[in-house]
Amino acid sequence: MSSFDLSRRLVAEGLGTALLVATVVGSGIMAASLTADTALALLGNTLATGAILVVLITILGPISGAHFNPAVSLIFALSGSLPRRDLVGYVLAQLAGGMLGTIVAHLMFDHPVLEWSTKIRTGQAQWFAEWVATFGLVATILAGIRFEQKSVPWLVGLYITAAYWFTASTSFANPAVAVARSLTNTFSGIRPADLPGFICAELIGAVSALLLISWLLQPSKSLKSKRMI
Amino acid sequence: MSSFDLSRRLVAEGLGTALLVATVVGSGIMAASLTADTALALLGNTLATGAILVVLITILGPISGAHFNPAVSLIFALSGSLPRRDLVGYVLAQLAGGMLGTIVAHLMFDHPVLEWSTKIRTGQAQWFAEWVATFGLVATILAGIRFEQKSVPWLVGLYITAAYWFTASTSFANPAVAVARSLTNTFSGIRPADLPGFICAELIGAVSALLLISWLLQPSKSLKSKRMI
Amino acid sequence: MSSFDLSRRLVAEGLGTALLVATVVGSGIMAASLTADTALALLGNTLATGAILVVLITILGPISGAHFNPAVSLIFALSGSLPRRDLVGYVLAQLAGGMLGTIVAHLMFDHPVLEWSTKIRTGQAQWFAEWVATFGLVATILAGIRFEQKSVPWLVGLYITAAYWFTASTSFANPAVAVARSLTNTFSGIRPADLPGFICAELIGAVSALLLISWLLQPSKSLKSKRMI
Amino acid sequence: MSSFDLSRRLVAEGLGTALLVATVVGSGIMAASLTADTALALLGNTLATGAILVVLITILGPISGAHFNPAVSLIFALSGSLPRRDLVGYVLAQLAGGMLGTIVAHLMFDHPVLEWSTKIRTGQAQWFAEWVATFGLVATILAGIRFEQKSVPWLVGLYITAAYWFTASTSFANPAVAVARSLTNTFSGIRPADLPGFICAELIGAVSALLLISWLLQPSKSLKSKRMI
Repeated sequence: MSSFDLSRRLVAEGLGTALLVATVVGSGIMAASLTADTALALLGNTLATGAILVVLITILGPISGAHFNPAVSLIFALSGSLPRRDLVGYVLAQLAGGMLGTIVAHLMFDHPVLEWSTKIRTGQAQWFAEWVATFGLVATILAGIRFEQKSVPWLVGLYITAAYWFTASTSFANPAVAVARSLTNTFSGIRPADLPGFICAELIGAVSALLLISWLLQPSKSLKSKRMI
Repeated sequence: MSSFDLSRRLVAEGLGTALLVATVVGSGIMAASLTADTALALLGNTLATGAILVVLITILGPISGAHFNPAVSLIFALSGSLPRRDLVGYVLAQLAGGMLGTIVAHLMFDHPVLEWSTKIRTGQAQWFAEWVATFGLVATILAGIRFEQKSVPWLVGLYITAAYWFTASTSFANPAVAVARSLTNTFSGIRPADLPGFICAELIGAVSALLLISWLLQPSKSLKSKRMI
Repeated sequence: MSSFDLSRRLVAEGLGTALLVATVVGSGIMAASLTADTALALLGNTLATGAILVVLITILGPISGAHFNPAVSLIFALSGSLPRRDLVGYVLAQLAGGMLGTIVAHLMFDHPVLEWSTKIRTGQAQWFAEWVATFGLVATILAGIRFEQKSVPWLVGLYITAAYWFTASTSFANPAVAVARSLTNTFSGIRPADLPGFICAELIGAVSALLLISWLLQPSKSLKSKRMI
Repeated sequence: MSSFDLSRRLVAEGLGTALLVATVVGSGIMAASLTADTALALLGNTLATGAILVVLITILGPISGAHFNPAVSLIFALSGSLPRRDLVGYVLAQLAGGMLGTIVAHLMFDHPVLEWSTKIRTGQAQWFAEWVATFGLVATILAGIRFEQKSVPWLVGLYITAAYWFTASTSFANPAVAVARSLTNTFSGIRPADLPGFICAELIGAVSALLLISWLLQPSKSLKSKRMI
């Protein structure tokens, strides 16, 4: 359990989500302004996002757990790693932090403070992609914590690096980040009307991973009893 | 030895191979759809594949060994690390997982569920490249396990990152992944007729590495006996 | 505390800053000479800078602390990690090293030894970006040292990799490097007239991070006293 | 000291240099065949080379030290880490391995087995760049071994990643690799007539680093004696 009080843990969640969103949105604006090649823009976006995730989870994880993601907080609340009474606070801190992140990115790049995105991201294929993206993210986190806790920052950074490219939705995999990205009409935006589909897919993907991984991580009973003898 | 029962180990092999193939195929589709520059497309494909390998081997290795590759399972069966009675199960789980991975990638990108590839990959130079690719992969795994077991996920991810670029075949180095890639007519595909050449070259490359590395890793007898005194 | 005498520590700071600036300036020249795509040029610049930071902080950190940055030395002097009498020496070594780095890059690429940059980098958005960049850098360093000292070289390399893309100023975040970059009229340059705005923003960002992170890193009193019982 | 006999150590040096050169030459051919953008080609070349260096040094280092480089073997012979009687064997194994690497790359890509390069790489700026490149490489190795031996594979991989971009010569920094690259008329080649300038600059750079780093790494005498009390 964290030895930090709730106010610090909430600030850590908010600050981390803000820096994560500032990176996602900011690097998207930067990349799109420098090249006409969308693959290259996605590459800059990917590199920045993967790198900052390793940093933020390493430096804020010991304080708040470094969820930065309501789907992850939900899973931890369900599995008992996060006290259930803290869940609402965590989610609100993530939502507020995410919005702050979009504002910070916009101010750095001389954009309007906030704006609605007009980027269409909808349809069954996109929703399935978000399901896959969040399933993989939560599976990575749960199995990572079990087998190599110290590597989790790297595992998450690398997973998202891959998922930006292998999922058709570029892997939002995070309801708070999705909301924050609906407030920017730039490279990484998403139309507010498309949020419900994305967020539902993400939450179902997270719960699916919890179910499968909980089963997968149970050691064999016969082997356990043999070792007890 | 793994403390997980066979059903969990087979699910881990299948799930890992599925996510690996979904990444290879999915990132290839994404990259090719975003740019006309083939080097850039290969870069996106490489980054995603290398990153997901580190993740998957770290989180599934403690369960099944994280082979995701019949050539690797064969080597481990030959060298005694995998019980020989499990070999067929492992290979079937890898083949099924690979096929599932192609289906997942296709569904995310709104492609037909499965399709035959028409991409020609044949000829002596390509076969030699696959021999080199798999030789290097198996050498990396065997020597990595011996000297730095905890780094093996990174070593494999980095090796494949390099091999996507330095081998003329972009380093399939994996019969199950090759079969799965014959079922997608996209960036990463291979014509079914070209599978036998690739798979033969891969298996011979794997066995060649086992022979050379087994010799290379024997410590000097005179030095050993000196230390015993 | 370092077990190296002041002369070695100052040489380490100078050498490290020189190699850092040679990398920033040199890779900028290389990249801009090879491509017309600015995003691709920034990518080459980013990769080289992030990679060399990991190397330099790992190999010189045990000697001098590997600040290479007057804003970082200031924070360490304020927080008691650097003896205050050493601060001026560190900053002078960093400034001299930075200038040497620009000269080395210019000689390698057959440029004039030194030249004034004409690249305009000014305005509130740029200053805010430098504030963000340095805030994030110092937060990364302070929390990194607290929770995972051995990973600090990686954390700084990854943070700067991200910050090159997510901040509108491409994250100078370093007064000595800024001065050195005013002496090159190439990809990574900055007009000398724009230095004061950048340097002020960097110093304020560094102090802001010190204040916030000092608060954030205090463990809960009630939890501490509970554990004492 | 290695517990492997000389024949295994020489095979390790030869195999490692062969795979390193196959990667440098092969990824250069691949990259140049896929894109018209030279920066992108260098990026593919860089990624592959940096990644394979981490792998090869990790898996072969415990056998032979993983020099793959006559300049590095020379420094280790001078500083006493390599028995002087082994130096000639190491260098011959590296030269033979390098040549084999070029042949392997050519066979994979359907090129003539060997060919003379016509790529001009000469002049004072290039030689100075090679001096810088090898100085930095040897400094990285010597200080890395002293402070964080286990990270040396990563440090070398990251250093070369940076040096491909920040040195005007793209950092050969290795006489055996330079000779092997004179035998390919592709992206990574060098005209045989330009070898002497490169090799001299590399050897002088290596010795310069040995001298500076030997001085830099001496702990303060007063501090040492204080601790002894």
